[in-house]
Amino acid sequence: MDIRSTSFELNTPGMNSIHDITPQVADFITQNDIHEGQVLIFAQGSTTGITTLEFEPGLVNTDVKELMEKLAPFEKDYSHNQTWGDGNGASHLRSALIKTSITVPFINKELCLGTWQQVVFIDFDTRPRNRKIYLQMTGK
Amino acid sequence: MDIRSTSFELNTPGMNSIHDITPQVADFITQNDIHEGQVLIFAQGSTTGITTLEFEPGLVNTDVKELMEKLAPFEKDYSHNQTWGDGNGASHLRSALIKTSITVPFINKELCLGTWQQVVFIDFDTRPRNRKIYLQMTGK
Amino acid sequence: MDIRSTSFELNTPGMNSIHDITPQVADFITQNDIHEGQVLIFAQGSTTGITTLEFEPGLVNTDVKELMEKLAPFEKDYSHNQTWGDGNGASHLRSALIKTSITVPFINKELCLGTWQQVVFIDFDTRPRNRKIYLQMTGK
Repeated sequence: MDIRSTSFELNTPGMNSIHDITPQVADFITQNDIHEGQVLIFAQGSTTGITTLEFEPGLVNTDVKELMEKLAPFEKDYSHNQTWGDGNGASHLRSALIKTSITVPFINKELCLGTWQQVVFIDFDTRPRNRKIYLQMTGK
Repeated sequence: MDIRSTSFELNTPGMNSIHDITPQVADFITQNDIHEGQVLIFAQGSTTGITTLEFEPGLVNTDVKELMEKLAPFEKDYSHNQTWGDGNGASHLRSALIKTSITVPFINKELCLGTWQQVVFIDFDTRPRNRKIYLQMTGK
Repeated sequence: MDIRSTSFELNTPGMNSIHDITPQVADFITQNDIHEGQVLIFAQGSTTGITTLEFEPGLVNTDVKELMEKLAPFEKDYSHNQTWGDGNGASHLRSALIKTSITVPFINKELCLGTWQQVVFIDFDTRPRNRKIYLQMTGK
């Protein structure tokens, strides 16, 4: 059993932009010597999100944005906004709901994802950001 | 420290059907030689969900379904549906929200769940499916 | 590679009260001999939640409560309530949605959280509770 850690950065436009990070996760497994294990994907920051999603334009550009807008609209006057004046209360709520990590198992160096199941990073902030995403695998 | 992996299949009717998979998780621990550790439960597929829930008829047959129907109704005309014609945009959104995995610790081969806390699989798809669920434990 | 497990208790007033448990998680890492790894934070119970959140009064006392009240209001007449008469259907739904665990990586004994990203426990139950939260780290 062993552990390997890395991280990578991502520039995003924010505003619920959704990014397929499956290639980075798969490369991390390819480039290491662990064959059976699991990889933790963890996004730093309280306005980020990590989940799995079929990465196709309808869901990515419209449906997920409409869902999140319905749950925690960007334009609402949150208490958070009154305190800090940074206007991104919705971003924090969306992040607390979706959460910032997922763990995916792999066997024979293959992620156990479905064909239409990609690992995605969502930037909930209201402005462009440079983000750090940690990858950590354990296994043998 | 070591790792053990397995998987099992589940036939479901879909339509937000909820299945108690705690017995499969507990059996996996019983049948292996790891005493202190954690088990990752990961459902393959972008219209699946894994969470914990008190597995009682009111929540399982009515309340969770009503909540998910309120958040992402099956009958809405999603962009995803227009693209693929498969009519299950709501299933993808529910899965992205609930997510497809959870990790539960165990000590002395006992899951650290509460008395009324079961591990459940939810099939968000709009039709019957055969599903694959991965179990992976690490520990010693 | 090794594993360490512990747990701690928390008295809460319930009613969606939110508690910063980052200090307990950080102390657990400080007090052990694992330098690179990940810590699983798992709350026992089907009316609990674990996520990350900027722990500031606007979000903690108002915004998260309003979001959860919008998604699953405490006063609705759930099927769960009719079955058990315990009136906390909303608590169970909120817990199934937010879920009861998160895993956070650490490197050189430092949690990979953002500056404004705290690990929080949320008590969704409708009455004061004594709660048990498990911490388990794996790494080397």
